[in-house]
Amino acid sequence: MAKELTPKSKNSAEWYNEIVQKAGLAEHSAVRGCMVIKPYGFAIWELMQQRLDAMFKETGHANAYFPLFIPKSFLNREAQHVSGFAKECAVITHHRLMNNPDGDGLVVDPDSKLEEELIVRPTSETIIWDTYRNWIQSYRDLPLLINQWANVVRWELRTRLFFRTAEFLWQEGHTAHETREEAVEETLRMIDVYAGFAEEFMAVPVVKGVKPEHEKFAGAVDTWAIEALLTDGKALQAGTSHFLGQNFAKAFDVKFLGRDNKEDYVWATSWGVSTRLVGALVMMHGDDDGLVLPPRLAPVQVVIIPLYRNETEMARVNEVSRNFEKELKLAGIRVKVDDDDTKRPGWKFAEWELKGVPLRVAVGPRDLDNNQLEFARRDTREKFAVPIDLRLERTKELLDEIQKNLFSKAAAYRQENSRNADNYDEFKILLEEKGGFIYAHWDGTAETAAKIQDETKATIRCMDLSQSEEGKCIVSGKPSKRRVIFAKAY
Amino acid sequence: MAKELTPKSKNSAEWYNEIVQKAGLAEHSAVRGCMVIKPYGFAIWELMQQRLDAMFKETGHANAYFPLFIPKSFLNREAQHVSGFAKECAVITHHRLMNNPDGDGLVVDPDSKLEEELIVRPTSETIIWDTYRNWIQSYRDLPLLINQWANVVRWELRTRLFFRTAEFLWQEGHTAHETREEAVEETLRMIDVYAGFAEEFMAVPVVKGVKPEHEKFAGAVDTWAIEALLTDGKALQAGTSHFLGQNFAKAFDVKFLGRDNKEDYVWATSWGVSTRLVGALVMMHGDDDGLVLPPRLAPVQVVIIPLYRNETEMARVNEVSRNFEKELKLAGIRVKVDDDDTKRPGWKFAEWELKGVPLRVAVGPRDLDNNQLEFARRDTREKFAVPIDLRLERTKELLDEIQKNLFSKAAAYRQENSRNADNYDEFKILLEEKGGFIYAHWDGTAETAAKIQDETKATIRCMDLSQSEEGKCIVSGKPSKRRVIFAKAY
Repeated sequence: MAKELTPKSKNSAEWYNEIVQKAGLAEHSAVRGCMVIKPYGFAIWELMQQRLDAMFKETGHANAYFPLFIPKSFLNREAQHVSGFAKECAVITHHRLMNNPDGDGLVVDPDSKLEEELIVRPTSETIIWDTYRNWIQSYRDLPLLINQWANVVRWELRTRLFFRTAEFLWQEGHTAHETREEAVEETLRMIDVYAGFAEEFMAVPVVKGVKPEHEKFAGAVDTWAIEALLTDGKALQAGTSHFLGQNFAKAFDVKFLGRDNKEDYVWATSWGVSTRLVGALVMMHGDDDGLVLPPRLAPVQVVIIPLYRNETEMARVNEVSRNFEKELKLAGIRVKVDDDDTKRPGWKFAEWELKGVPLRVAVGPRDLDNNQLEFARRDTREKFAVPIDLRLERTKELLDEIQKNLFSKAAAYRQENSRNADNYDEFKILLEEKGGFIYAHWDGTAETAAKIQDETKATIRCMDLSQSEEGKCIVSGKPSKRRVIFAKAY
Repeated sequence: MAKELTPKSKNSAEWYNEIVQKAGLAEHSAVRGCMVIKPYGFAIWELMQQRLDAMFKETGHANAYFPLFIPKSFLNREAQHVSGFAKECAVITHHRLMNNPDGDGLVVDPDSKLEEELIVRPTSETIIWDTYRNWIQSYRDLPLLINQWANVVRWELRTRLFFRTAEFLWQEGHTAHETREEAVEETLRMIDVYAGFAEEFMAVPVVKGVKPEHEKFAGAVDTWAIEALLTDGKALQAGTSHFLGQNFAKAFDVKFLGRDNKEDYVWATSWGVSTRLVGALVMMHGDDDGLVLPPRLAPVQVVIIPLYRNETEMARVNEVSRNFEKELKLAGIRVKVDDDDTKRPGWKFAEWELKGVPLRVAVGPRDLDNNQLEFARRDTREKFAVPIDLRLERTKELLDEIQKNLFSKAAAYRQENSRNADNYDEFKILLEEKGGFIYAHWDGTAETAAKIQDETKATIRCMDLSQSEEGKCIVSGKPSKRRVIFAKAY
């Protein structure tokens, strides 16, 4: 490992780019805007997927798979949807290449032009609702609770690994309901699932709230979001859940015969989280020495490093290490013994710190003579001896403690960096000098939001409905029902 | 359920199309060539994925993710590869749509033309080997053992659900090695993994063999395949593992510094199986009444159906049903209680038979009076009483027995339908009258294989290297080292 990481405190953006690549999470690919997710980064995403998938199934959803391609005309069916996605999509126009008749290489075969162009899905509401039309006839077919794990493409020029790429991986839930109330309930249930996942697994505290009208999903009636405050002072929209009303049902003519024997359009929701959660995890907890992974999402929860100066010592410490590895695996703990003989312990310590492994256990002859092992926590950097008989018990306890500690630290950070601004000057100063979440009154108009964004780059992240103190807009002075959350965002 | 399934014995192709849709496995989508995988079908694929993924990890592989798009020029780097895939690919030429200036709807924005066209991956050797160039410098970086779960697109006009669609889901392993021997070993290891999965989980016996030169993967030195004989008498290539030699390393300039301090090109393999395995499962075991799923891949292994004529009986049988459900879940068995009050038991029996659930348990008051439950096997159609105390034990035993029985039946079918042909006339008669695998001598030339295919539609499925009887080609009379397997194929 070339240990030349830019300190996070000095330049968090630069630190982020370096750590994502040096820790083996991801890299830019030869295809503009697309990333390669490397094995260590993908292992984090797999753990996220497994947990989320279980949560979706516990709440009654089943997985299915819909086509990658969407006929161009489908986009046009829902008026807002088209304006949201038509300007940034990959368009397939032909289905064959041929040898260049005028020279080297391959060219598009003009005879293979498609009658109707296809676009690569930027999201799947249109193709899914076109399908649901045949699946739903009566209230007996409802609710329909489906999720899809998929890749999607939104053409992006300014990309950032995990946070913003042209292709990304995500899940998208698409549900159909008899009544408005049921659909709203589902929208809220899923934003709660996301918030629970973010807090309990990612150790990232989030605010649940409604997006203002001008920031909502193209085609939604209401968009709920979970917003996280990352440790560079910027907000991240970490997941969204949309109440779609009857918009897509009307666009794709999906009606059902109700209990009252009357026909009506179906009510809908959609909701999604993506690989950007991996970016959030990195930025939230990482420090100057690298990643700091919460135990529940760490591909390696415990790394065991044998220490020795000769072959006799090696045989002894390796045996203890392998036995401890077996015990931990049996207990369902993800563990790795790093017994690579070509690397020095100091190099290994730094490498596994860079990779954010929550707990390091060094197994050395002197400690063994004293019936102990040396444990080191990645989060607090504490090192301490653990009696060998307590090794398994302490490992379990420590993994829990680290998980909790990361959440507490993140929650404290957010609390310290959430401030009220009571006028526009104060707002600007806080934003420039402190960043973070700024709670301020806003008159509810897109014009005021646009003015603030133009002048300060801050956007309204969401409206936390638990806020109820009335006041006056910091820009227009018009009445406001509650403070909303402003921040600079990803 | 509208119970009007075409008998399999009468028209297996028609039966297949009907059962795939009626059992809720998949359907055609609005996008030509693409299918929608419905929840029940996707649940089978998920079980396949889980098991295969575990097998890949047990053999040392890690998952990663590479871009969906491939620059057009990449295809051209490997001469055989390009000829294999350029003629059937989705080509992205633009990245924006706009409102039609001359009328309604959306048109491609001509200003958004890409400098270089992108194709949707038909397979990922090119983009992956372009990436590996930066990952591999020395023998210490090898072996590199990576797998990807992904969607791929090969433009197809004649499609068949699961067996042949333009977009399909698959996994593709891509490994890099120091030596030819290691790469060949990996190629064989993975074809063994596939054969083990097919036989032990799908209950589908397969032949492992080498593809003839003219049938191998575009860019491979050798292609190994597992070939199954489905019960319509046709062969299915169920998985392939390719030894790629140094072809892609040379095309993408991937060299490493060896233990001997010399530079050399890296040796490669790739291997994959796809959602066509779901099609194989359906065609292999299904019967006139619907699917017959092997227990290890059945989304529902046991269905419990309460029988009652009044509310008192209902309360009693439902309680027993729910308790048995809990017991089975605790034992890790996938179970469903169908207590839908709007459907009659006969309808439910037929529905779950159609869906291929291996074991049905009916819970009725009379049986309970006799301390028993009525079990019914899907594979043999046997019905029998099981003492209530033995319910869990017998369930486990029966699921194992059904799994084994399905494999035995399939193996017996293959044996009955594998025949030797010693001259071309006999070959043609056997093929027309019996179908199945025909073992015959072939002179090893593409010309002879093409003549046979033109005249009979049979192709060489693979060369089973355990066959060692020499002879003379049934067409040319030239010498042949061993019989090869001919069949009509998917």
